[in-house]
Amino acid sequence: MKHGARNSVKAKVKSIKKGDIMSLIKFEVMLPADMASVITTESVEELGIKVGDEVKLAIKAVHVLPYKD
Amino acid sequence: MKHGARNSVKAKVKSIKKGDIMSLIKFEVMLPADMASVITTESVEELGIKVGDEVKLAIKAVHVLPYKD
Amino acid sequence: MKHGARNSVKAKVKSIKKGDIMSLIKFEVMLPADMASVITTESVEELGIKVGDEVKLAIKAVHVLPYKD
Amino acid sequence: MKHGARNSVKAKVKSIKKGDIMSLIKFEVMLPADMASVITTESVEELGIKVGDEVKLAIKAVHVLPYKD
Amino acid sequence: MKHGARNSVKAKVKSIKKGDIMSLIKFEVMLPADMASVITTESVEELGIKVGDEVKLAIKAVHVLPYKD
Amino acid sequence: MKHGARNSVKAKVKSIKKGDIMSLIKFEVMLPADMASVITTESVEELGIKVGDEVKLAIKAVHVLPYKD
Repeated sequence: MKHGARNSVKAKVKSIKKGDIMSLIKFEVMLPADMASVITTESVEELGIKVGDEVKLAIKAVHVLPYKD
Repeated sequence: MKHGARNSVKAKVKSIKKGDIMSLIKFEVMLPADMASVITTESVEELGIKVGDEVKLAIKAVHVLPYKD
Repeated sequence: MKHGARNSVKAKVKSIKKGDIMSLIKFEVMLPADMASVITTESVEELGIKVGDEVKLAIKAVHVLPYKD
Repeated sequence: MKHGARNSVKAKVKSIKKGDIMSLIKFEVMLPADMASVITTESVEELGIKVGDEVKLAIKAVHVLPYKD
Repeated sequence: MKHGARNSVKAKVKSIKKGDIMSLIKFEVMLPADMASVITTESVEELGIKVGDEVKLAIKAVHVLPYKD
Repeated sequence: MKHGARNSVKAKVKSIKKGDIMSLIKFEVMLPADMASVITTESVEELGIKVGDEVKLAIKAVHVLPYKD
């Protein structure tokens, strides 16, 4: 499918832990993978981020939406 | 830093496009990378997802938080 | 109340399933209903979306906030 | 496509307003439409929500992901 | 209004910066203020968080919804 | 750590309630605390918000990310 999210990462399911309402699924990311972030321009400046920098990307698991084409 | 998000992905900044309020940053993910998702148990069942499946992960860019240790 | 979200959908509660920490509530949407989405301009272009198109809107249940006036 | 979000609402595009980084898209929801919300069980109790109640659902536009099958 | 979010913080508007599509609003929080977070139980354990600890709470500005009663 | 979120609130852990998959943590916010919100410019105008106004900020607990420096 075509969707309006900037990030579409291929991944293999490693484990599934089912709870009463919510479940936790773990994945191994398959390469190549690119990602994108939208933050305020103020934050870009305060973070002092520039091309070539190595950073980390924190993403809460509730924001990750698995899908099958 | 230690944080309460399941996903902490190493990445290199490839481009930064600054707008008036929001900016878009693109990254190349560095390996190895694992990810996690929390969805409803109902969705796990309807999606019919199981260990070993290859899926895709959609993540809106506004949910990706870059940080530096 | 007046709030700063673009989407304010009238709905009737159909079921409530309570879990230890989180609960899942289901609703029937009442008409008329309009919705709005904010995505990157890049995504608008890649998705090739235009006025009159029929699309689907995916929304994770954790992002839906019920309220009473 | 099959995805792991509880909400998949059919909608017709009414307008698109493009900005430098982000764009705002408006939709008319097509019937029938059901929605789901996940909130804390504490909130269910404090809100005093029960089957048959009419409520409103606030959703920030940044959490709405349009897609085409 | 009564809503289904755990966090309802009183605040005074300090500044508003309007952009083409999105705007950035800054607030001074008024006391007393309590907040709540829902994270995976796994993250609670890895973070080693316990009652009395001083931590910081990161919240992306797009997740903060101002409203008037 | 330095991160790309506008909100970084100091807080003390008051309680932790662990569930099967998700846990709920409560905090007391420590002063001084400032917060920021990004909403659509349309919402700013409809909400009629201006400098000096007292408002409330609704934030779903799943969007609050605790971390330790």
